[in-house]
Amino acid sequence: MTPLDKGLDKARVLIEALPYIQKFAGKTVVIKYGGHAMLEQDLKEKVMLDILLLHSVGIRPVVVHGGGPEINSMLTRVGKESHFVRGLRVTDKETMEIASMVLVGKLNTEIISLLNRFGGRAVGLSGKDAQLLQAVKKPMKFENSQGELEDVDLGFVGEIEQVRPEIVTSLVEQGYIPVISPVAGGEDGESYNINADTAAGEIAKALKADKFLLLTDVPGVLRDVEDKDSLLSVIKEDEISGLIDLGVISGGMIPKVECARAALQGGVGSVHILDGRIPHAILLELFTDGGIGTMFNA
Amino acid sequence: MTPLDKGLDKARVLIEALPYIQKFAGKTVVIKYGGHAMLEQDLKEKVMLDILLLHSVGIRPVVVHGGGPEINSMLTRVGKESHFVRGLRVTDKETMEIASMVLVGKLNTEIISLLNRFGGRAVGLSGKDAQLLQAVKKPMKFENSQGELEDVDLGFVGEIEQVRPEIVTSLVEQGYIPVISPVAGGEDGESYNINADTAAGEIAKALKADKFLLLTDVPGVLRDVEDKDSLLSVIKEDEISGLIDLGVISGGMIPKVECARAALQGGVGSVHILDGRIPHAILLELFTDGGIGTMFNA
Amino acid sequence: MTPLDKGLDKARVLIEALPYIQKFAGKTVVIKYGGHAMLEQDLKEKVMLDILLLHSVGIRPVVVHGGGPEINSMLTRVGKESHFVRGLRVTDKETMEIASMVLVGKLNTEIISLLNRFGGRAVGLSGKDAQLLQAVKKPMKFENSQGELEDVDLGFVGEIEQVRPEIVTSLVEQGYIPVISPVAGGEDGESYNINADTAAGEIAKALKADKFLLLTDVPGVLRDVEDKDSLLSVIKEDEISGLIDLGVISGGMIPKVECARAALQGGVGSVHILDGRIPHAILLELFTDGGIGTMFNA
Amino acid sequence: MTPLDKGLDKARVLIEALPYIQKFAGKTVVIKYGGHAMLEQDLKEKVMLDILLLHSVGIRPVVVHGGGPEINSMLTRVGKESHFVRGLRVTDKETMEIASMVLVGKLNTEIISLLNRFGGRAVGLSGKDAQLLQAVKKPMKFENSQGELEDVDLGFVGEIEQVRPEIVTSLVEQGYIPVISPVAGGEDGESYNINADTAAGEIAKALKADKFLLLTDVPGVLRDVEDKDSLLSVIKEDEISGLIDLGVISGGMIPKVECARAALQGGVGSVHILDGRIPHAILLELFTDGGIGTMFNA
Amino acid sequence: MTPLDKGLDKARVLIEALPYIQKFAGKTVVIKYGGHAMLEQDLKEKVMLDILLLHSVGIRPVVVHGGGPEINSMLTRVGKESHFVRGLRVTDKETMEIASMVLVGKLNTEIISLLNRFGGRAVGLSGKDAQLLQAVKKPMKFENSQGELEDVDLGFVGEIEQVRPEIVTSLVEQGYIPVISPVAGGEDGESYNINADTAAGEIAKALKADKFLLLTDVPGVLRDVEDKDSLLSVIKEDEISGLIDLGVISGGMIPKVECARAALQGGVGSVHILDGRIPHAILLELFTDGGIGTMFNA
Amino acid sequence: MTPLDKGLDKARVLIEALPYIQKFAGKTVVIKYGGHAMLEQDLKEKVMLDILLLHSVGIRPVVVHGGGPEINSMLTRVGKESHFVRGLRVTDKETMEIASMVLVGKLNTEIISLLNRFGGRAVGLSGKDAQLLQAVKKPMKFENSQGELEDVDLGFVGEIEQVRPEIVTSLVEQGYIPVISPVAGGEDGESYNINADTAAGEIAKALKADKFLLLTDVPGVLRDVEDKDSLLSVIKEDEISGLIDLGVISGGMIPKVECARAALQGGVGSVHILDGRIPHAILLELFTDGGIGTMFNA
Repeated sequence: MTPLDKGLDKARVLIEALPYIQKFAGKTVVIKYGGHAMLEQDLKEKVMLDILLLHSVGIRPVVVHGGGPEINSMLTRVGKESHFVRGLRVTDKETMEIASMVLVGKLNTEIISLLNRFGGRAVGLSGKDAQLLQAVKKPMKFENSQGELEDVDLGFVGEIEQVRPEIVTSLVEQGYIPVISPVAGGEDGESYNINADTAAGEIAKALKADKFLLLTDVPGVLRDVEDKDSLLSVIKEDEISGLIDLGVISGGMIPKVECARAALQGGVGSVHILDGRIPHAILLELFTDGGIGTMFNA
Repeated sequence: MTPLDKGLDKARVLIEALPYIQKFAGKTVVIKYGGHAMLEQDLKEKVMLDILLLHSVGIRPVVVHGGGPEINSMLTRVGKESHFVRGLRVTDKETMEIASMVLVGKLNTEIISLLNRFGGRAVGLSGKDAQLLQAVKKPMKFENSQGELEDVDLGFVGEIEQVRPEIVTSLVEQGYIPVISPVAGGEDGESYNINADTAAGEIAKALKADKFLLLTDVPGVLRDVEDKDSLLSVIKEDEISGLIDLGVISGGMIPKVECARAALQGGVGSVHILDGRIPHAILLELFTDGGIGTMFNA
Repeated sequence: MTPLDKGLDKARVLIEALPYIQKFAGKTVVIKYGGHAMLEQDLKEKVMLDILLLHSVGIRPVVVHGGGPEINSMLTRVGKESHFVRGLRVTDKETMEIASMVLVGKLNTEIISLLNRFGGRAVGLSGKDAQLLQAVKKPMKFENSQGELEDVDLGFVGEIEQVRPEIVTSLVEQGYIPVISPVAGGEDGESYNINADTAAGEIAKALKADKFLLLTDVPGVLRDVEDKDSLLSVIKEDEISGLIDLGVISGGMIPKVECARAALQGGVGSVHILDGRIPHAILLELFTDGGIGTMFNA
Repeated sequence: MTPLDKGLDKARVLIEALPYIQKFAGKTVVIKYGGHAMLEQDLKEKVMLDILLLHSVGIRPVVVHGGGPEINSMLTRVGKESHFVRGLRVTDKETMEIASMVLVGKLNTEIISLLNRFGGRAVGLSGKDAQLLQAVKKPMKFENSQGELEDVDLGFVGEIEQVRPEIVTSLVEQGYIPVISPVAGGEDGESYNINADTAAGEIAKALKADKFLLLTDVPGVLRDVEDKDSLLSVIKEDEISGLIDLGVISGGMIPKVECARAALQGGVGSVHILDGRIPHAILLELFTDGGIGTMFNA
Repeated sequence: MTPLDKGLDKARVLIEALPYIQKFAGKTVVIKYGGHAMLEQDLKEKVMLDILLLHSVGIRPVVVHGGGPEINSMLTRVGKESHFVRGLRVTDKETMEIASMVLVGKLNTEIISLLNRFGGRAVGLSGKDAQLLQAVKKPMKFENSQGELEDVDLGFVGEIEQVRPEIVTSLVEQGYIPVISPVAGGEDGESYNINADTAAGEIAKALKADKFLLLTDVPGVLRDVEDKDSLLSVIKEDEISGLIDLGVISGGMIPKVECARAALQGGVGSVHILDGRIPHAILLELFTDGGIGTMFNA
Repeated sequence: MTPLDKGLDKARVLIEALPYIQKFAGKTVVIKYGGHAMLEQDLKEKVMLDILLLHSVGIRPVVVHGGGPEINSMLTRVGKESHFVRGLRVTDKETMEIASMVLVGKLNTEIISLLNRFGGRAVGLSGKDAQLLQAVKKPMKFENSQGELEDVDLGFVGEIEQVRPEIVTSLVEQGYIPVISPVAGGEDGESYNINADTAAGEIAKALKADKFLLLTDVPGVLRDVEDKDSLLSVIKEDEISGLIDLGVISGGMIPKVECARAALQGGVGSVHILDGRIPHAILLELFTDGGIGTMFNA
């Protein structure tokens, strides 16, 4: 191929993207960033470039990141021993402090750094900034040996009570890319750990986002979990219950799908569960026909 | 190639465009649209798509179109006989009226239609709208047989006296793509025909455009006019005179280069002479290394 | 009269206009400009001056012009033969092209020129600019010899499907006077001829105009068509049907009154059918007690 | 004349005013209102109508009124005896209080009432509102019997030290007509009487007004004070000194002309000395060729 | 106490005020200023300082002042004899003129002066400015000797028909403190005297004020009028009728409480009746727990 | 004291603060927060309350915090051994990562929490957010045994090259309190530790702050370092060199004073070195006569 032919090929690809760009211009897209895509340097960079490309064509990305194994490795490193209740680790004050340091001071900062290095203007937030996420202790109940439900205290694990999205909206309107750590504030100033999928979903709802993308380590919802080619590309909100009953949606996929359903019910346009292990998963989902994951919509 | 591989290829092309998109975001680019690129349907559409892509990634395109052979064919069709003075056609009132109808009522409308059909929001203007272009009769002098200079009246051929770019700026700021016909108003309301390159250059100057692209039917400035590979990719403003003296810039290229020089001196960032016969010439020039034509800058 | 007395007379006239000016300040007035008022130079100029006076006292005029006999004369001039179906001329592609050239490239440009010459800042638009008017082919049915309704294809004669008034609003808010040609775009970029009264009425509705003035070649609605002094100055919307039944509104007046009724039902404050053959008809209607034509209101 | 002919006559007058309206649109005009025009009910109303007409055609009038004989009559009424120093009345605290009541509480309120009654939105101000006018005691010196200059204390007669025009600008921008009483505040909150011509001139300067009109009880500057037809229509700033030396400008006209000169030097476009005894003097000056008074400009 | 200890004490007081400041930031507070607080210089200054402090911490104060005994003293001074009908003084045109002069020209100006002297930016208004308060003659009926109700004409005593609060809102938004005299305009431009409590209440309603403070010469509503310690700190709107029936609210307190009730019903957040004879009554009410007067709320 | 008397005392204190509040309204105050004031819970809270009080009276505080001993204790905790070059600790990548976690993820978050708990709307930033602080490796040179200067690499210790204050300005204008950690980004996305005083000073310069307060653990500049009563309350910029030469400014005070001087030269209005160990040091400095520390101004 001559250089001109190569150029023409590229021009064609750009032009093919035009209808997608026009369609999504000005839309708010919340991206839950986690899993493998946060671990490998090459995947990380590709996610950042995808986000920057969205931003550069007029889409408004908002990133909420997860924690990954970094919190555990830091806990180990400082010799913090975990306590467990009914098999679940208790997030005591010290654990929460370490978690906050890793999420806000390390992971968030790294994401910001990457985005800015590729020409972006990203701003890191936690749920405590401008009281973005307000939480209360998440009530947990377990059945005891007598078959009665008992409250169990897992420490600073929170449930979101209120989202004040103004700081996010205001940063987005000024052209910044907000990157949010899933740490919320409580009434007395303490910090709570929040499930990152849930945090992202709540933020998507509060922003009335057009799209909410969940980067996961699975291809999406498979009709046959053994068969990668059995991907369900689109699931309607009212089909979800049936698919759970049928066992098509099961295991770890259930909370993700519930998170998707809650977002749809809260006014989000569509929710996409994507395989973050595929490079450029975000662009592939948004800018190619059919996409690569499972889209949920009303 | 699997569909995923194809998708990845496309994603890579989009990401390669990112630095260009970031670099040109918010810039004003004036495009003189004319020549072959106005004649063939396929080229026409590709120019429109290029313009829309620029617009969709945050660039602010302003289009000034030329007349092409349509004016002559319309004159023929209505049986209008032309008068000539010293071999130059006189643009009398009737000719001007026909020219205005073809430019404003046909060509401009067609461009608008194409842009809008592909999802754009284009608005047609002539230089008479909001007094955008104010002209006076262009003084022409010819040497008579006694070797004296004599005024020659070529009718409604104008020279731009004043540009009021507010209407263009205001449309651009509201996200419209202005498409401008090279017809100017005179003091008493009459219309003047304006050379389209000149009109585009004056508008680029008045807008303090970052780039001014001239779509032509030549590859750019060639060091050896016979050798298409001898293209000069970049010419500095202060090299222009020398290249004219050397005869590298000659013939019909001289007025185009003078137009480029005037634009640079008027504050335009760079001027590009491109081969409009190449599909996607605009994207190739702006979004690939080195581009395809000749760039003039300070 | 001394110059001072003359001056005082003028001052008194200006002061008499004050209550009208105060009453109409900030109101949007859509003016359908057509008929004789588009043919005679003196009447033309007076219409333009009236429009400029409205504008200068804080009223927001929007002009929609008709075609007049110019389209036919151009068709003749280029030797275009018309085809007829059931006595109605078919607007084929070529005819539409000529119509567009005359409307947009000649008549609109002339109006702009006149307004700007008297100090205005007018901007010409067609319904294709920024997708202002979107049309579909107007369905036409005729009874055939068997008494059945048959579809008849009259070509590019359109019916307005959607009005996107943003471009008009935005120009008006920035102090421009929009002048609109009754050409609409279709889904595939083709052009449709639109009845100018209808186009003006639809635009008035989309703008929620306070007033919609139709310049015609009749004095308004006459109780006795033979008696010019039998003008009905005001007709309530709910009186229209009765007046049609009585034959007071008949013939060519019916479509105009239907257009008025549609505008009122669409939220326009009042509709005025005026005699455009009277100089300064617009000022006389708006700035004198009772006016000179027929006003329709709710 | 038929009603139509009368209507046409009126329309012509309105159209004749168009160039003036276009020329003055958006301009700030400061009007010093005083003399006879404040005494006779009919003249008063005509001044108010003139001001409202200016406002309704997009001009921005600012009114500064004088005191007239009302202050003296109020002083008499409350039995306040005046003290004199070298023939000049001393404005003691009580006198100032009465003056303030008459200016702000009576005259200003009356002007506001009239303007609002005719449909205006006028707001009364004194120089104390928002610290519009800050004054110090005006230093007065008189020659004593030994031929030496001695300070004389005339009480609360002030000299303007600072103008803070923001409140006026802000009211004007919101479409109000400010009416200002010539009372200024001093450093310790006390009030000072200010010469109304001077106050108006200083305000015109601070607003960078385009025009400053002084309504007086004389026709303007007459070359021969006995001959009303010897009016000087235009005086250039640099001719003023010569005309004073020649005695053409003399007596009570001198301070008015000095006030005009100071305004011109402070950036006011033109100053007009008008005969407020002529009905509609303001309209006659602004909207007829040549006007009726004397215009001073640079 | 060392200077540092004194400083710390002050810092503590400021910090104690913080929750109140945060709570009231951005709120509109209408203050009816009258009674003793308008008579003694020291009280006057403290009221002004309180108002300025509110303003400086982000509260938006609007002041409506009463007349006090100054109007009567001026009437006496000019020898104006009052006419009485059924024991009520008739406000004839001359009386109204004097009242207006005293209210607008003297009292309002004095308040402005004080506020500005302490660093404020206050602007005086009467109800006639920008047609803020529009009134009609207040209908008064008295029983005659036959036991029939008869209309009694008390002259220019008005009842508020319409409030146009835009001028107040606009001044407040630009950081000015509006000070309003209770004079309203009538349909024909005449002036009406308005009860100051009523005027303040109507303005509070039109502004949807958060708080309406009435400075009076009583401590608030006392359960036992003889016992100053029997103050009712809070009265709910629905308790008012009962308290009137019980005679707890009686005499001159009834119209004030009715004014409070009307304000609450019109959307005002809370109404406070305060003892203006206590220095800094406003700060004490707003910035200390429980306050010093009686608060009415829904 | 009766409650009323106590209330009056408080009101008096508030009123005494009025002139200071008026004087500083709208001013930007950059506060370097560090030292003891970051260690004791009670002092911490008082600093936060002071900052919130400033904010609530219209001042615009911007906080830059230091690191304190927390970084070292975390390094110890994770068993990180430090390397030293010429007695200076090398900030290697791992150390920098720990520092960033402590600064951004722990200390900054704690400050935000406290401010928000007391009703504020604070937003945490590091120098990497929106590329606020761009740094390069700080060049360090030491004399080697041959007396030659040698470059020494202390790792990720940075020198500020560029400040992009837009994100801070934008947050401040929307009413947020920005809290900034002294971590800067490098060209390739790496993080640099920045001296907090320097970071605060550079930010103050970039914001053209009116005041820059340095909370330290000393009373200010003492004429005699042994005598706490020998505080120099005001030092002019041009006296600094002399005081250094005299040894009055010496030791650890020198870099702080140099930082102050740089800020003044960069356009900051005044710089204040305060004793952060005194409760409410900020309020005492700004809201009492003379203040408590040393003020530097031009």
